[in-house]
Amino acid sequence: MTADRDKVVRLLKTARGQMDGILKMIDENRYCIDISNQIMACQAVLSKANKEVLNAHLANCVLNSRGDDSKEKLAEITKILDQLL
Amino acid sequence: MTADRDKVVRLLKTARGQMDGILKMIDENRYCIDISNQIMACQAVLSKANKEVLNAHLANCVLNSRGDDSKEKLAEITKILDQLL
Amino acid sequence: MTADRDKVVRLLKTARGQMDGILKMIDENRYCIDISNQIMACQAVLSKANKEVLNAHLANCVLNSRGDDSKEKLAEITKILDQLL
Amino acid sequence: MTADRDKVVRLLKTARGQMDGILKMIDENRYCIDISNQIMACQAVLSKANKEVLNAHLANCVLNSRGDDSKEKLAEITKILDQLL
Repeated sequence: MTADRDKVVRLLKTARGQMDGILKMIDENRYCIDISNQIMACQAVLSKANKEVLNAHLANCVLNSRGDDSKEKLAEITKILDQLL
Repeated sequence: MTADRDKVVRLLKTARGQMDGILKMIDENRYCIDISNQIMACQAVLSKANKEVLNAHLANCVLNSRGDDSKEKLAEITKILDQLL
Repeated sequence: MTADRDKVVRLLKTARGQMDGILKMIDENRYCIDISNQIMACQAVLSKANKEVLNAHLANCVLNSRGDDSKEKLAEITKILDQLL
Repeated sequence: MTADRDKVVRLLKTARGQMDGILKMIDENRYCIDISNQIMACQAVLSKANKEVLNAHLANCVLNSRGDDSKEKLAEITKILDQLL
């Protein structure tokens, strides 16, 4: 991975902490909407991590690829865009 | 929470397992796109958990609410829809 | 529809105007990314219109429904949430 | 634009037709949820058009770009991914 490893790890550990928090909320029988909001907050942190990973990938791996490798790397990006659109 | 607790907990534990897997992938310096795909897979599992929570909430808490409580509960759903749209 | 009709119509006409603009851009062989950005801008206006429609629906039709009608209306909201999550 | 022009135009015209249909539904005071579903169907068609545009852009313009042009084109893709994630 070419992204800033510390930043991505920090975000993922935050998300894991949130997930532990959500499991505790369920154990304490907390209100549905509070749990739902926490799940979405955790997904937002994962999106941030994913942005870091993909931005660095485009700015490094894809930019510096050549020929068939470049073609394949752009096909991978196309696949991700297709999932998101 | 009114959702099937076992099902939600199982999904959240799956997501936490995926997250541990992603942290390991970063540690092993795996390919960016593989990491990105795993992050999105983890988000998809969280979405499933969120659906369970919200579906049960609508079918129970919201359905059985009355008067001002009903008004407040529908405002909470509106807020969630606003975030998603 | 219980939403502010003028507001929703105004948003939809804006979106239709954007769509005519996009068709013209294609005709003029404009740059892919500019076209893509315009398509996403048009989708954002449609999301605004949808928010208006659904917020008013929840604050009126759903709030004032009773019994089986209420159950059915909440099932419709559940279906929309399932699509969005 | 490098995408299949006929296909993109056909999709956009479908979306414009749906939009005219939605305006008519509002005029006929149709049910909120039916209107909301039509708005989302229209957005889905626009997403299809956008996929066509971006897939062709990546497979042509980006793949064949060099040096600074390549850098700029990948930055444009990064910006789009950032909006979607």
